[in-house]
Amino acid sequence: MAFVAAVLAEIVTIGDELTRGETVDTNSAFLAGRLTELGVCSVGWLTSCRDVRADIADALVRAATRAKIVLVSGGLGPTEDDLTVDVAAELAGVEPVVDEPSRERMERRFARAHFKLTPNNIRQVRVPSGARVFDNRNGLAPGFEIALRGASVFFMPGIPREMSRLCDEQIIPRIGELLAGAPRVLRRIWRVFGVGESHVDDRLSGLLAAVDPTAPADSASLHFNVQFPDVLVKVIARDEDEARARARLDRLGTEIRARLGEAVYGEGDDGLPAVVGAALRARGATVALAESCTGGLIGHLLTEVPGSSEYFRLGMVLYANQEKVARLGVSEATLAQHGAVSRECVEEMARAVRDLAGATYGVAVSGIAGPSGGTPDKPVGTVHLAVASMSEVHAKVLAYPGTRSQVKQLAAHWALKLLLTEASKQS
Amino acid sequence: MAFVAAVLAEIVTIGDELTRGETVDTNSAFLAGRLTELGVCSVGWLTSCRDVRADIADALVRAATRAKIVLVSGGLGPTEDDLTVDVAAELAGVEPVVDEPSRERMERRFARAHFKLTPNNIRQVRVPSGARVFDNRNGLAPGFEIALRGASVFFMPGIPREMSRLCDEQIIPRIGELLAGAPRVLRRIWRVFGVGESHVDDRLSGLLAAVDPTAPADSASLHFNVQFPDVLVKVIARDEDEARARARLDRLGTEIRARLGEAVYGEGDDGLPAVVGAALRARGATVALAESCTGGLIGHLLTEVPGSSEYFRLGMVLYANQEKVARLGVSEATLAQHGAVSRECVEEMARAVRDLAGATYGVAVSGIAGPSGGTPDKPVGTVHLAVASMSEVHAKVLAYPGTRSQVKQLAAHWALKLLLTEASKQS
Repeated sequence: MAFVAAVLAEIVTIGDELTRGETVDTNSAFLAGRLTELGVCSVGWLTSCRDVRADIADALVRAATRAKIVLVSGGLGPTEDDLTVDVAAELAGVEPVVDEPSRERMERRFARAHFKLTPNNIRQVRVPSGARVFDNRNGLAPGFEIALRGASVFFMPGIPREMSRLCDEQIIPRIGELLAGAPRVLRRIWRVFGVGESHVDDRLSGLLAAVDPTAPADSASLHFNVQFPDVLVKVIARDEDEARARARLDRLGTEIRARLGEAVYGEGDDGLPAVVGAALRARGATVALAESCTGGLIGHLLTEVPGSSEYFRLGMVLYANQEKVARLGVSEATLAQHGAVSRECVEEMARAVRDLAGATYGVAVSGIAGPSGGTPDKPVGTVHLAVASMSEVHAKVLAYPGTRSQVKQLAAHWALKLLLTEASKQS
Repeated sequence: MAFVAAVLAEIVTIGDELTRGETVDTNSAFLAGRLTELGVCSVGWLTSCRDVRADIADALVRAATRAKIVLVSGGLGPTEDDLTVDVAAELAGVEPVVDEPSRERMERRFARAHFKLTPNNIRQVRVPSGARVFDNRNGLAPGFEIALRGASVFFMPGIPREMSRLCDEQIIPRIGELLAGAPRVLRRIWRVFGVGESHVDDRLSGLLAAVDPTAPADSASLHFNVQFPDVLVKVIARDEDEARARARLDRLGTEIRARLGEAVYGEGDDGLPAVVGAALRARGATVALAESCTGGLIGHLLTEVPGSSEYFRLGMVLYANQEKVARLGVSEATLAQHGAVSRECVEEMARAVRDLAGATYGVAVSGIAGPSGGTPDKPVGTVHLAVASMSEVHAKVLAYPGTRSQVKQLAAHWALKLLLTEASKQS
């Protein structure tokens, strides 16, 4: 069960908006990533060309000559600039024909929206005669596959949400079929907060071999992706047997959590605000915020989650010291003795905002986001945080010398992490 | 003074992280955009290849054979995988040599940071012997230019902030020199808020011809770029005479402001939060916020600007109706009669938070961000806004059926726009 990434693949993206630099080509990276994850292809070249007939033909022929699998996006729209179908048909030695199922779906969609069909729209549902067609479930132009110079060439629309769905649901499985012995690919993501990428890398070193000493080296792979302030740990498992791949991901997940501990706060797409929200809802708890340097960011993050009004009671942004005193009754003595950026101050703020709102938890943050305002004792990046529950207050201090925006983001996410820890405790 | 974009240019980016799909290639779009703006080049191809000696050589030779100008990024790092200098030297028929000024600068930098220089670091300051060298002011590896197959080929590091500075400060001027008759290129951006892209396009239709009827068509160009919720209007002016290009941009700016009116709120990089901040500071004014559906986002945006503590006094996030009553004294009668999402409610909130904080202005927002909570009368996307100054209250209602996140962003920016209007009035 060893899989060798011996098959060469290429990506071709088509469009003047790319060569003029008006649009950053995110499709190439998406497609290259999916092919790489498959574990049976190695992507050799990414090429972008203009909406010029000769250039498109040149790009397709060169890619098909070098590679076995070619993924193409762009140039399938309704305008005269969209030349991909015509060039592909010509290279395959056939005529473009209307794909009837795509035309019917388009007509139904247009009728529902009371749009008028123009002759141009018909251009968009053409494919080279004899091509294998893939439905476009997020748009109009279908995808298709032709054989060219010994390669299988797959064409997709350039719009990312149309391309990505077509790719994941139809093209990648088809490539799996085409390449003999291609395994099932399963992907799982663990979300890590509070540990830097290099430490995550270090703690997970030797992970795959430790969990499955006898598995072939290329049957699973480990990837890191920083989405500040989170680090995402992704494992790709490849196996002909889906249940076996799933079981392996489960074993790896257990080991990842064992090695990284509390830093792993979730799996998949939900970030800290959604995970905190679910924890609060699960125990019928509510939260109130007293923010200083984060300026409202914690409230903004919490309220990006639909339904957050169930547990988010009150937020206060107390940028000025006098407001900390006037709104929350922080004592003048605390401010005089320890300053606003101190453990003492945030503990008072957290308790006070909790009581003011009658919430289960009070969260407070006060710090120096920079670029100015730092002192030798409390340099830029010094942030004090506190979470008050009914019975206790937990505090933490950060020292992260980043940009203003980074300091705010890190502080807001640490506040959510402390809140998650409290809200996840057995009561 | 007609400039024909007759010179073909190409971009080559190098690195396994690109072909594996781990990194989205933003350098190609940046470089293609800069070359396109120059108005004397047309970019034909964007190519990305692996860190493989033969592939790099193949990509460079093909690009240099087709094009007159080739921009290359990547593969200039310190590791054994970084092969670009070696391949470039081999193709030019010379040896790689250490660039002494770059080496000295690296040694000074390392000494200041108490870093130890390893032999690998020396790899990073090599260039092909005889190449024209460009200082890297944001990093270690210098850029360089060689002649290959009749083309001028420019090499830059792959790190975007190193590449972009090198490109703008040194490479683009050098290309201007190389291409006879290349004009000066000046760029200016106007920031527009509150008018959709298609309306901006419509109102600016025929702009260039109206302002300068006799100028050649290709001596200026107009571009739109949506950075939700802003629309950026960019004009590129090309002229051998810089003062003349600048005067033209001034005339265009006057006309753009005449056609778009108050929707143009600024120029250049500063978004609404910075522009509002400058207006508040200019009149020594302060602001307090009462946010509901925006959840803290207005405060977050205001406090992204350094020095915002000078004018930002107090923020309150009052998600629950009872908090609107308890914290700001919104009347139960208003809530019962008009609901929390009403002009009456936000006007009360704006006045109350202004008075509570003793601020010059009070800003209030209450709406339905969705996805649930809408009614036939007040569908998702209904948001009421108010700004209270010392003497008056101005209100506005939005009806934007976007995602939760878009509704929040649009509402927060409209709140800032109303505040800007107040803070810009002659007192």
